[in-house]
Amino acid sequence: MARITGVEVVDVRFPTSRDRDGSDAMNPDPDYSAAYLVLRTDDGPDGHGLVFTIGRGNDVQVAAIRSLAPHVLDRPVPETAADLGALYRELVGDSQLRWLGPEKGVAHMALGAVVNAAWDLAARRAGLPVWRFLAGMSPEEVVGLVDFRYLSDALTPDEALAVLRAAEPGKAGRAAALERDGYPAYTTSPGWLGYPDAKVEALTRQALADGFDMVKLKVGGDLADDVRRLRLVREVVGPDVRVAVDANQRWDVGTAIGWMRELAPFDPYWVEEPTSPDDVLAHRAIADALRPIKVATGEHVPNRVVFKQLLQAGAVDVVQLDACRVGGVNENVAILLLAAKFGVPVCPHAGGVGLCELVRHLAMFDFVAVSGTTDDRAVEWVDHLHEHFTDPAVVRGGRYVAPVAPGFSAELVPATLADFRYPDGPVWTELEAR
Amino acid sequence: MARITGVEVVDVRFPTSRDRDGSDAMNPDPDYSAAYLVLRTDDGPDGHGLVFTIGRGNDVQVAAIRSLAPHVLDRPVPETAADLGALYRELVGDSQLRWLGPEKGVAHMALGAVVNAAWDLAARRAGLPVWRFLAGMSPEEVVGLVDFRYLSDALTPDEALAVLRAAEPGKAGRAAALERDGYPAYTTSPGWLGYPDAKVEALTRQALADGFDMVKLKVGGDLADDVRRLRLVREVVGPDVRVAVDANQRWDVGTAIGWMRELAPFDPYWVEEPTSPDDVLAHRAIADALRPIKVATGEHVPNRVVFKQLLQAGAVDVVQLDACRVGGVNENVAILLLAAKFGVPVCPHAGGVGLCELVRHLAMFDFVAVSGTTDDRAVEWVDHLHEHFTDPAVVRGGRYVAPVAPGFSAELVPATLADFRYPDGPVWTELEAR
Repeated sequence: MARITGVEVVDVRFPTSRDRDGSDAMNPDPDYSAAYLVLRTDDGPDGHGLVFTIGRGNDVQVAAIRSLAPHVLDRPVPETAADLGALYRELVGDSQLRWLGPEKGVAHMALGAVVNAAWDLAARRAGLPVWRFLAGMSPEEVVGLVDFRYLSDALTPDEALAVLRAAEPGKAGRAAALERDGYPAYTTSPGWLGYPDAKVEALTRQALADGFDMVKLKVGGDLADDVRRLRLVREVVGPDVRVAVDANQRWDVGTAIGWMRELAPFDPYWVEEPTSPDDVLAHRAIADALRPIKVATGEHVPNRVVFKQLLQAGAVDVVQLDACRVGGVNENVAILLLAAKFGVPVCPHAGGVGLCELVRHLAMFDFVAVSGTTDDRAVEWVDHLHEHFTDPAVVRGGRYVAPVAPGFSAELVPATLADFRYPDGPVWTELEAR
Repeated sequence: MARITGVEVVDVRFPTSRDRDGSDAMNPDPDYSAAYLVLRTDDGPDGHGLVFTIGRGNDVQVAAIRSLAPHVLDRPVPETAADLGALYRELVGDSQLRWLGPEKGVAHMALGAVVNAAWDLAARRAGLPVWRFLAGMSPEEVVGLVDFRYLSDALTPDEALAVLRAAEPGKAGRAAALERDGYPAYTTSPGWLGYPDAKVEALTRQALADGFDMVKLKVGGDLADDVRRLRLVREVVGPDVRVAVDANQRWDVGTAIGWMRELAPFDPYWVEEPTSPDDVLAHRAIADALRPIKVATGEHVPNRVVFKQLLQAGAVDVVQLDACRVGGVNENVAILLLAAKFGVPVCPHAGGVGLCELVRHLAMFDFVAVSGTTDDRAVEWVDHLHEHFTDPAVVRGGRYVAPVAPGFSAELVPATLADFRYPDGPVWTELEAR
């Protein structure tokens, strides 16, 4: 029986703040980073996982992942849904580590990286990309992945089974359609807050030429700037392309409503992260005031308990799950099932380091085996840093191509690990020497 | 001008799991620990702070505190409310570190330790215990400590000012009353889940003899055990002593309501942490179903945004702030002001390592300068590990004695730092050698 024989964790950082890629109203100078994990085995493939951060503190995230090593070292390589459910439950159930959350922040993201690396390992051994590996599980196996603690007032195991069983007919056809046509994407590349208008305009035209029918702009820095940029983009794309805006948590309730009313003439499709990701009641108040503009959030929602409340309260119109914020695939399956129960579309957050690579698997699993539809759904696409991955995300004609390589696509190429290691990789020592 | 010249962080752990002190339904074997921080200065006293954890992961917490050192190293020693507000805002505003929360978990607790150490420093320089240092600030200065982001739909700066101004009359008299009579306490010492009935009974009798009029039991492991223990304690204390129960997040909504209905015949005063600390809507459902039994929570509530919602939703009857879970004194001042605005009593969480030492300052400030009352209020008291502190909390006749030593009472005695350092202190090397 193959075993996990090593846990390697590396602090990888990209000096993205030099170009203001990724700049928004809350995050003016991110250095996109990954706390990167490899589970070594004594037989067969290794497993890869990561936590995306934006620079400082990536070392703390590395320490948190290392603290979980005793749970996986010398463990048999997980192969089945039951193995992956057991590992997740053991990690969530570590009562001493639980104190550091519970189920939120640095400790929870570390747990998610270990769970995701275990999924990478299991899917590689099965010879399948994670989306196909997941979609091949029975409804009972999928339900067994989920921790229903704190969910039962909104979703019971029986209700989750019913959601999955309803999606059984047509699974093979939808998987084939994905391999043929891909999955809808939208692009944030034109809209970073630090870009000048000419760059926004050129990138928006490029997005149309590339086949996208939805783009997203960062807002929340300066109202006059936002009005000017949104008008510009709306003029470029015409009335039929969706234009979402993203405030990255800048506002209180009153400001969110007032600001968005100024942007409403340009028909924004959704407003993303209008306020604190913890604030269910504020999202409900904002959603009630702004309809038909949709309210979206999720990339910083800490766990399934907060997603549950956002859905129970009717506070979100779009669920933006994140591959690395919560407890890995298992908790994201819970979030997909909750969203399906409440009939709310899931449009995963991506960008960053590796998020496009990872979330496409979750969206495709949702289409094949949970919601059964791509209506009102699209995965975020930001076209940078993909060259660092061995199985990079590919978007063609405005759609994510279905991945075929076995695993979860989180593996970094060896040269990247050598060059961008912080603080001692050559990229950083050279920057330091300037 | 005095400056901060060093940031020392130590991993301190006590092997408490050997005696099942601190055992509850979610935390069967805690090793009470502290990620302990000293801010060294080049002139005058040093500042001390800590994060309480229960063992594994304390090293991650240490790493998180160390990551904040650049924000305080070489900084002038904070002396005024404005200095302390500026430091807090700078730490919360570090956008790269914010990604690790935001404002929750390991990263936020680290920030809280630094803020609290800065308060210790400032109060020592002022020659006052923190409760008197805080109570001596003007309403305007206190409001300046608070980050109102995400609060304005429930509490504006003007409303906070009005709360504080209404408490101005009688401040001196209330401070004098505290120094004469102390502040109400209740005791959890009899009620740890791992204790046999005879020990529970003996400790309950001792609590009465010591002058307490309120005790607390851990519940949520086994219903028959809980019924038997609660009946036992109620028989010992009679009808007039309050008996609270604490489920430490064990339950979903339905289980919480059903379980507490079985305990209702024994007149529990409050149920604490019936479910996930993130679940505002669940707390509301439980509170609605169980009245007149009160619902209490807070020791794991991650920040002021979740406290705000618990109050807005009418989901809690008792706010249990924690000195080390949120962003230090500044965020706890926000929580005290929110609770006062909504007319909900604050009964701080204590126990652990140093929590009794710290929270007494906050409760006393609340009495003197915010709520102006001790009605329906009491600070938790657990009588262990106090001997490790230079200014230990003292409870006499069921009341906390008002601290008089300058500072925030977080300083550990040198012998403790040497003996309990993990993993290389002699206490741990000897345990390891057995």
